[in-house]
This record gives sequence, structure tokens and C-alpha cells, in this order.
Amino acid sequence: MIDQELVDLLKERYQIVFKNSNLLQAALTHSSYANEHRELHLSDYERLEFLGDAVLELNVSEYIYKKFAQLSEGQLTKLRADIVCTASFSEFSREVGFPKYIRLGNGEEKAGARNRDTLLEDVFEAFNGALYLDQGNEAVVKFLRQTVYNHIDAGEFSDENDFKTELQEELQSQGDVVIDYLVIGESTIEDNLSFTVQLIVNGTRLTTGTGHSKKAAEQQAAHRQLLKLRLDK
Amino acid sequence: MIDQELVDLLKERYQIVFKNSNLLQAALTHSSYANEHRELHLSDYERLEFLGDAVLELNVSEYIYKKFAQLSEGQLTKLRADIVCTASFSEFSREVGFPKYIRLGNGEEKAGARNRDTLLEDVFEAFNGALYLDQGNEAVVKFLRQTVYNHIDAGEFSDENDFKTELQEELQSQGDVVIDYLVIGESTIEDNLSFTVQLIVNGTRLTTGTGHSKKAAEQQAAHRQLLKLRLDK
Repeated sequence: MIDQELVDLLKERYQIVFKNSNLLQAALTHSSYANEHRELHLSDYERLEFLGDAVLELNVSEYIYKKFAQLSEGQLTKLRADIVCTASFSEFSREVGFPKYIRLGNGEEKAGARNRDTLLEDVFEAFNGALYLDQGNEAVVKFLRQTVYNHIDAGEFSDENDFKTELQEELQSQGDVVIDYLVIGESTIEDNLSFTVQLIVNGTRLTTGTGHSKKAAEQQAAHRQLLKLRLDK
Repeated sequence: MIDQELVDLLKERYQIVFKNSNLLQAALTHSSYANEHRELHLSDYERLEFLGDAVLELNVSEYIYKKFAQLSEGQLTKLRADIVCTASFSEFSREVGFPKYIRLGNGEEKAGARNRDTLLEDVFEAFNGALYLDQGNEAVVKFLRQTVYNHIDAGEFSDENDFKTELQEELQSQGDVVIDYLVIGESTIEDNLSFTVQLIVNGTRLTTGTGHSKKAAEQQAAHRQLLKLRLDK
């Protein structure tokens, strides 16, 4: 039932072989697929996502607690929030290559759910929940070293200002706004992936930002717009 | 530096002996105490609380995930929220006997912080963070079996309605209200502790509730008032 390609990918790239392949299968099964195939009595990923969410929260907390002995509780909390969020987890999900293997119902497939950040976040959490149940936390830590901790070590997350939130608060203080970040460029130079996004407020294209993740690019675009707003005052 | 009474209590009642007693000490040290004794270079509990929060979240999640196989993700989330909250954790803190051993600055002591629910919650989290670092997660699980899981097994938590929140929302829909729950009775019959609380809205005494914890008693009082409001309609 599980795509052999995914089984091979996990084994080759992460040295992960599930003992109970039902857990892996459930982690990649959206409820819409389980509902469309009731006769198969499939489990979807929702309960695993519940568990995986807490598995990730603890492991990320422990990693940054130990790595950044100089950070205060407040700084650690900000840093964790920057790592444990939809934008990051959906990126990790893409990086591992999960999107292709998610089992979706027809309706959700047509609605573009396969590339929806919240769904990709769910799958990343569910996978970690499944791995935790199948092989314990040490296996999770090993997997996170290759998928999350390496990004933390690379300094991609911040315990400081969240420019997107700051910008949103500033713009909303003047009334309702619709804020969007549109990916307008993506390039790979010698294995270094880079994104360019554009900030769009109420349909008007404003600043752009570039970074190694969409999130970093969005932060840069938001930061630039904040600086412009302050200069204009 | 650590109260020998606490060391004995932990050893006798929970078979816990810290290898690194600085961790235990920090878990019970409020920042106000550390600030008043700068010359001692004490660590306060804040970073441990950050870690302990995630330690508790994972262990409670795993426990209910495995115990209640029939619960959906949504029900598990509600149940977890009922367990992992200030009201519960402060009660657990009192049950272990932590309040007496917390090191507080003078100002905080006078302000009554020793009996403040949020501070007692922090200490419970920090203690679990310290135990996790000192002896690993198995030791935490063993401790939780005697302090948290026994309460879960006793059915003290619910995956269903939160009557206090429901009542608050209903009352606030008609304007600003001040809602209080006052403990008006406490009794112990054959080791069974029982609380009676009274709901007070804008200074008016309304329904009462009784339960094995303050939280359960408050839920009952809120539930009764909700029923009254519905009958009056």
C-alpha cells in the first residue's frame, strides 16, 4: 500500500525503516482519502499529528535549551515559535519530499491541498509522531538532526523581532488590510536554494525580499516595508 | 542550600534523588530571590520552565494518545488542554508540596506569590524540566504516574465541554463581567479531599459546586449556572 519510492527514500537518505508500516502509511493519509476509501478501514494522520506536534515541541525545545545557554526563557520562547510554526514545518515537509506521497481525496486534490502549508505541516508532525511510536525518541532526534537542527545551526531562525507580525500590527492599526506574500522567484545555485517574495497589501505590490526559505524571504520583505514606513513618517 | 526536608520528601515519596542538586535548586528559585541575592549567582527556574512545559506536553500527550485509542484528535486536544493548564498544574504542585520550598524574594512573598497559581504551575513545569535533564524521560514518566496520570485515570479531566469557558462567553456577550470562583469549603473524609466553590458574577453570589479539585468544583458551579440561565430563557 505504501509507495516503495518513499520507503527507499527514507531508508537511503535518513536510514529509517519502519517496523510497523501502518504507522508510516497513516502519517501520509489525509482524512479525505480515508473517507473516500471506507472499505479499506484506513487510519488518517490526525491522531499521529496530535502526538507528533508534542514530540517536535519537546525536541526543538531541548535542542535550543542546550545549544543556546545564554538565551533567556523569553528569547528561547521566541526562537521556538520561529521554528515550530506552519511556515517552517511545511518547508521541512517539502524538503524531505513528503508532498508527492500524501494520500488525498479527489476533492482535496482538486482544491490544491497537496501544496497547502497547513497540510504539509500536519504531515511533518504526523510523520514524527509515527517515528516516535515506531522507534522511540532517539530515532526522531536523528531524523531532526538532518531536517531541522541543521537549519537551526545555520542560523535561519531568530529569537528577535518577527517583522511580519510587526508589520501586520502596524498596518492593521489603520484599518482592515489584506496582506499577501507572493513567491516571484526561485533559484538554485550550487545546491543553494533561494526564494524571492513580494509583499502585497490590499492588492498593491510593495517590497520584495530574498532568502534561503520562503519564510526568511518574507521576513526580509516585511522588514523592508517597515523601514520604508518609518522613513516616510 | 536545598531544604533537606524537600530532598527527603522527594526520596521517600517519589524515590527521586537528584544527581545534580543545582537543577533541583534552580527549579524552586524564583527570579525575585535570585535578584535579591545576586552575590550568590543563583539560577532561577525560568529556562527550566521553558523546557519542562514541553516535557509535560509530550508526556501527557503520549499518555492519553495510548490510553484513549477511541478519542479523535479533536477530543484528545480538548482533554490535553484540560490537563495541561494553570489550574491543574498548580494543584499538582500543591499536592507534591512544592509551595513551602519555593525561594521567593521579599516583595513577592509579601504579595502572596507563594500561593499564586501561575507561579505554582511554573514550578511544577520547572521541576519536570530539571528531572528530565538530570535523569531522563523515564524518571519523569515515573513521577507523572504518581502525580498526574493517577488523576487522569480517576477521570478528573474531560474531553468534552469546558463549562467555565462556555459560561464566560455567554455572560460576556451581554457586556463586561467580573467572574470569580471563591473556595467556601474544604473537607477531607478518609483521605478524600473535597472542595466547594461559589461562583460570583459582578459581586453577586450565584451557584456552588463541589469536587475533588478546585477545578472540578468550579466546573460544576459553572455548569449549574449555565443550566439555570437556560431554564430562565
